[in-house]
Amino acid sequence: MKKILIIGTVAYDEIETTTGSSGKILGGAATYIGLGASLLNSKSSIISIVGGDFEHKNLKLLKLKGINTDSIEIVPKGKTFYWKGKYHKDWNKRDTLNTQLNVLADFNPAVSEENKKAEIIVLGNLHPEIQNTVLDQVNVSEKCIILDTMNFWMDNALAELMKVIKRVDIIIINDEEALQLSKKDTLFAAANKILSFGPKQIVIKKGEHGAMLFDESRFFTVPAFPVKKVIDPTGAGDTFAGGFAGYLSHLDKINFEAMKLAVVHGTVMASFCVEGFGTSVMESLEKETTNNRLKEFKNFTRY
Amino acid sequence: MKKILIIGTVAYDEIETTTGSSGKILGGAATYIGLGASLLNSKSSIISIVGGDFEHKNLKLLKLKGINTDSIEIVPKGKTFYWKGKYHKDWNKRDTLNTQLNVLADFNPAVSEENKKAEIIVLGNLHPEIQNTVLDQVNVSEKCIILDTMNFWMDNALAELMKVIKRVDIIIINDEEALQLSKKDTLFAAANKILSFGPKQIVIKKGEHGAMLFDESRFFTVPAFPVKKVIDPTGAGDTFAGGFAGYLSHLDKINFEAMKLAVVHGTVMASFCVEGFGTSVMESLEKETTNNRLKEFKNFTRY
Repeated sequence: MKKILIIGTVAYDEIETTTGSSGKILGGAATYIGLGASLLNSKSSIISIVGGDFEHKNLKLLKLKGINTDSIEIVPKGKTFYWKGKYHKDWNKRDTLNTQLNVLADFNPAVSEENKKAEIIVLGNLHPEIQNTVLDQVNVSEKCIILDTMNFWMDNALAELMKVIKRVDIIIINDEEALQLSKKDTLFAAANKILSFGPKQIVIKKGEHGAMLFDESRFFTVPAFPVKKVIDPTGAGDTFAGGFAGYLSHLDKINFEAMKLAVVHGTVMASFCVEGFGTSVMESLEKETTNNRLKEFKNFTRY
Repeated sequence: MKKILIIGTVAYDEIETTTGSSGKILGGAATYIGLGASLLNSKSSIISIVGGDFEHKNLKLLKLKGINTDSIEIVPKGKTFYWKGKYHKDWNKRDTLNTQLNVLADFNPAVSEENKKAEIIVLGNLHPEIQNTVLDQVNVSEKCIILDTMNFWMDNALAELMKVIKRVDIIIINDEEALQLSKKDTLFAAANKILSFGPKQIVIKKGEHGAMLFDESRFFTVPAFPVKKVIDPTGAGDTFAGGFAGYLSHLDKINFEAMKLAVVHGTVMASFCVEGFGTSVMESLEKETTNNRLKEFKNFTRY
């Protein structure tokens, strides 16, 4: 089994929806990516930074899920990255009510010798400068590098982001971001353009409408798993990336056919994420439930 | 092979999009349904009404595609149903600029003895009162009856529409219409509610986001075929219904597994429709092109 190295935020979130609010809960891209991969029994390690306020029970949870937390730096006098957001009735729209970078402002990740051995690296949503710092420390050509990013960096650090994109194997972004990054007006044109920036594959996430996978000459698409009731979409995209990487970690050879199934697994893992606030559903998911939903998804989509 | 009987409009349309306009062209739900079925080499017969202005070349085209036009009544002194519409940049929005019912105002379809033998009946979008009149003339319990309708009738003839819905096997509607008809706020809840009105299956079309098929206990979904450039979405839903019925017409037994493939075929046939104004692309499609796209769709969606 390939080891997965995850770089990203471990954070506290506070989430409001039209039907409820979460209170202060565990969040962060790396957290969701790690949990997404753990649902598929993958071995991962997180590089991140938290403050002295970060609760032991949260670290314990990650460890319990098979996530190595040795490289989550704890700054005793600092505070953990905090984000508060509010979703509209249309889940695709959300307002950021409060962002406190806190310890993240000085995050300068060092990759340990052990972590340098990971064969799959997932760069979670984070300042592209930090993502580049991580890539500087590893042998990029020997790794499968997966990048998740978002429009915020396209608006605020495009040049740095383009440098990262050039260096990764697979980029995972959502539909609007793909259009923005490529300056194209269809997803096909966007995918082609973004592939010309460097990645060998691109995954475009379309939320409730599924996901698409492209390489230079091939295309694959799946619908989303039809969730009966969405409670909180926070972290769904990160969980997708975690499930995607988690599936690949079990394979000797990572090719387009494998990535099709990785997209399926990412889709199904993300469906659990949105069924509760934050990480709540994924924290206590039985292996059987995961397997059943994967089977169900096949039933729903195979013909 | 089962024969398909289609009841619906044969019309003239004039379509404006943000990039062009069609001029006066052949349209109508029955036309598109017939062409959708003809792409799969099905045998169909249309019951409709046109005016003395209906051009011979249009009738000839339908016949050339294996569609029996004997039951398209021609009213020499009347004018053919006419619709003019304009699409927004967002294809899901369109404004009706002009509607002239003309001969359609007095449409009172009689089902010939020959047409009564058809095993599949497609009720194209039309006043539900007329759809009921047709069902009154056939042995409903022996047929596979497919209903296509739209929000206009939900707003203006709901009681009559509910009577039709009660009598059909399969209802095909789009996502917004399913929510409106069911007064529910998710497509799953909507599908369940609508099934309780009578149909054994429901197909919910989601345009560029694909289609869903439900019966009482089962669910299936496919993405749309990714069309590179949409020129005109008029008739796509009707063409879907035609492809759906066309696929079923070749089978001895119509069950849920067959309907999954019918949804796939409807999806692919509809993708041709939107690639040109009106019926233009479907008029001259080679069998090979259709087969290739079906294969391509499998490549895009099977894993």
